[in-house]
Amino acid sequence: MNRTMINKLNNYINKKVTVKGWIHRIRKLKSITFIVVRDRTGLLQCVADNKKIDCENMKCEDVVSIEGLLVKSRNDLNPFELQIESVEILNTSEVLPIEINKENLDVNLDTMLNNRMLSLRNKKEADIFKVQNAIVDGFRKFLKEREFTEIFSPKIIKEGVEGGTELFEVKYFENKAYLAQSPQFYKQMMVGAGFERVFEVAQVYRAEEHNTNRHLNEYVSMDLEMGFIDNEYDLMKLEEEMIKFIIDKIKDECSSIEGIENIIPEIKYEIPKIEFNDVISIMAKEYNKTDLEGDLDPDAEKLICKYAEEKYNSEFVFVTNYPRNKRPMYTMMKGENGTHSFDLLCRGTEITTGGQRIHNYNMLVENMKYKNLNPDNYKSYLENFRYGMIPHGGLAIGLERITCKFLKLDNVRRASFVPRDRTRLVP
Amino acid sequence: MNRTMINKLNNYINKKVTVKGWIHRIRKLKSITFIVVRDRTGLLQCVADNKKIDCENMKCEDVVSIEGLLVKSRNDLNPFELQIESVEILNTSEVLPIEINKENLDVNLDTMLNNRMLSLRNKKEADIFKVQNAIVDGFRKFLKEREFTEIFSPKIIKEGVEGGTELFEVKYFENKAYLAQSPQFYKQMMVGAGFERVFEVAQVYRAEEHNTNRHLNEYVSMDLEMGFIDNEYDLMKLEEEMIKFIIDKIKDECSSIEGIENIIPEIKYEIPKIEFNDVISIMAKEYNKTDLEGDLDPDAEKLICKYAEEKYNSEFVFVTNYPRNKRPMYTMMKGENGTHSFDLLCRGTEITTGGQRIHNYNMLVENMKYKNLNPDNYKSYLENFRYGMIPHGGLAIGLERITCKFLKLDNVRRASFVPRDRTRLVP
Repeated sequence: MNRTMINKLNNYINKKVTVKGWIHRIRKLKSITFIVVRDRTGLLQCVADNKKIDCENMKCEDVVSIEGLLVKSRNDLNPFELQIESVEILNTSEVLPIEINKENLDVNLDTMLNNRMLSLRNKKEADIFKVQNAIVDGFRKFLKEREFTEIFSPKIIKEGVEGGTELFEVKYFENKAYLAQSPQFYKQMMVGAGFERVFEVAQVYRAEEHNTNRHLNEYVSMDLEMGFIDNEYDLMKLEEEMIKFIIDKIKDECSSIEGIENIIPEIKYEIPKIEFNDVISIMAKEYNKTDLEGDLDPDAEKLICKYAEEKYNSEFVFVTNYPRNKRPMYTMMKGENGTHSFDLLCRGTEITTGGQRIHNYNMLVENMKYKNLNPDNYKSYLENFRYGMIPHGGLAIGLERITCKFLKLDNVRRASFVPRDRTRLVP
Repeated sequence: MNRTMINKLNNYINKKVTVKGWIHRIRKLKSITFIVVRDRTGLLQCVADNKKIDCENMKCEDVVSIEGLLVKSRNDLNPFELQIESVEILNTSEVLPIEINKENLDVNLDTMLNNRMLSLRNKKEADIFKVQNAIVDGFRKFLKEREFTEIFSPKIIKEGVEGGTELFEVKYFENKAYLAQSPQFYKQMMVGAGFERVFEVAQVYRAEEHNTNRHLNEYVSMDLEMGFIDNEYDLMKLEEEMIKFIIDKIKDECSSIEGIENIIPEIKYEIPKIEFNDVISIMAKEYNKTDLEGDLDPDAEKLICKYAEEKYNSEFVFVTNYPRNKRPMYTMMKGENGTHSFDLLCRGTEITTGGQRIHNYNMLVENMKYKNLNPDNYKSYLENFRYGMIPHGGLAIGLERITCKFLKLDNVRRASFVPRDRTRLVP
């Protein structure tokens, strides 16, 4: 008999159905046994007559196929229940090391991640990825509608984007290679190859030594790059529209998550833009914070978000025009010390870095030298700028990071299916 | 003035427009200059009066913004042309090392790949990725409609899927790690985590020494895994529907590619299925080929495709029930020596490997031993099978491979934006 998904059962009242899934809960009484079955769409209460069905050995998380008659339920909690006619045990489970059938997983983060297959059986943990799927789909759909081409760029690379720091080394046959920190060079190359507008959603790698609640050593980067822009304001406009689109998509696709519309952020008015130098002044004036040395630290990120929330009623804020010496060598300069760059911050943390890029060969070489980088180490990259590179810019959003911020999670690892951090290589 | 894309110009006849792009061709006559401009959507002929516009220094692949009046053209080749009123040179190009503005790139593969930004400016080469985008979109859309969850699994792993061969080694801080050959273990884990149906589109890595026209050392794998299947026939059914869906999507989205409907394959009837042992017999009887030792070699793949084409009028063929000793340890056994497995072949080459997986802990351990693998090396993987793993199976399609076959390309590298092979680490 064909399987019916639990969320489709309302069409089958007083009919025979087969459901398949895991035993979520089981309560054995003297004459009857209650079995709550869980499939990917929901929970169903089933009732067995102990004289007809042998439930003696059934345990939580056994995998079952249950056939029975679906009837209206007498209690208010469940709209209907299944009167079991037969049960087939498809696989068995040992006793779980963690309890997963409560609303919240009451375990510490390490235990949660060590038992990843099990912790994701908890609805609350699994729902994180429902939202994440909506974010990724929204990112792609929004860009596809604007004629962006999806690219897949190599993650094994010979030259790092920013020099040799924070790169994982790979043995590539007889050569030494590295894992890409970002698709930066390749998305620029593909813009110049005539696609003009490209995006990529893929893993990138940072060999950072520190272990924080917002960093991963392998994460999914949602990257885009776009040609024929006037400046970075085109990118911020695009991103603002995209974030709105994504928020709407979450609301639309994740309405089964209780209270989701109150958890995810809103864009009520235009996202405020504050110049980097003004942020520094605001930090000093409003928060008596004067220890910043040409860049924002985590505290400053939190404070400027607080400021934007209080002053502009916005959970997002763009910080613009970062100093030249703090931005990568490919960043378009603005005046003497500034850049056509921006970050997007949300709820205390940076979720996007972006900006206009240099498209002129000589300017790029000059900026490499300014950054004490040797242009000879970037030969293959520089080559692209000799043959009509178009004006362009782009941005990158960390997928786990934005998921974490949108859902107010305490740790970015919960937004990674199977995270890699300083010490975690397993599972 | 706002930019108008070239493929939208038919709405602007007798109006002033601005187009932006590259100088595709330029022909300087005595009193006028013809400039063909190329943007991501097409070509446009522009005409300059040499008395008004200084075209002296303009060259192919310079980046321009041209303003002018769009008029109906007098010749049949171009529906309209632009009478140039002003030109802004946004960037210049040196003389190209390869000629890109002909129908076919007349260069060898190495030159094509060494000059990747330029070779992709050739329409024919770029169109490959239009088709590839349709394939990826089709794969995702088809599966999303069937409630698959998209996953992102780690590519830095501690244990290889099949033991230690053909793995690239990564230095992960103080540990030795590897690049994933496939998301196999993780997609199984996520099926067991309650998502039931998952897919991933991501780079995978094979440290294979050989350099062929159909292998890459880094490629994009389109993977899916699905719970509660009866057996491998559910997967073949799903794939057949999916391939049809993808073919329709290509026809729909790539109609601008001349003759595309005659290039891509068709599924006219149900894809034939031939058991592995029958393939061996057919090879001997029909083609006098008797050198096969329990697996198909490239010649046999070509011949069985020829056979399917001649006998069943099909460009696709499923080969089923591969011998147990030739399939990975996680493959569900069938009888004494067979497996619930299949390959899908198209136009002479395997494009998919799939099958039902073992979901029972003890059976999996037993099969590892049969394969001379040490279960202790797969502790973290095996752990998943102790807690109610559901019956499941899946498949993987190489994105560049299927693109190559669908477009009858001579080399899989042409279907990779920036390929990595035995010797190629740059660009």
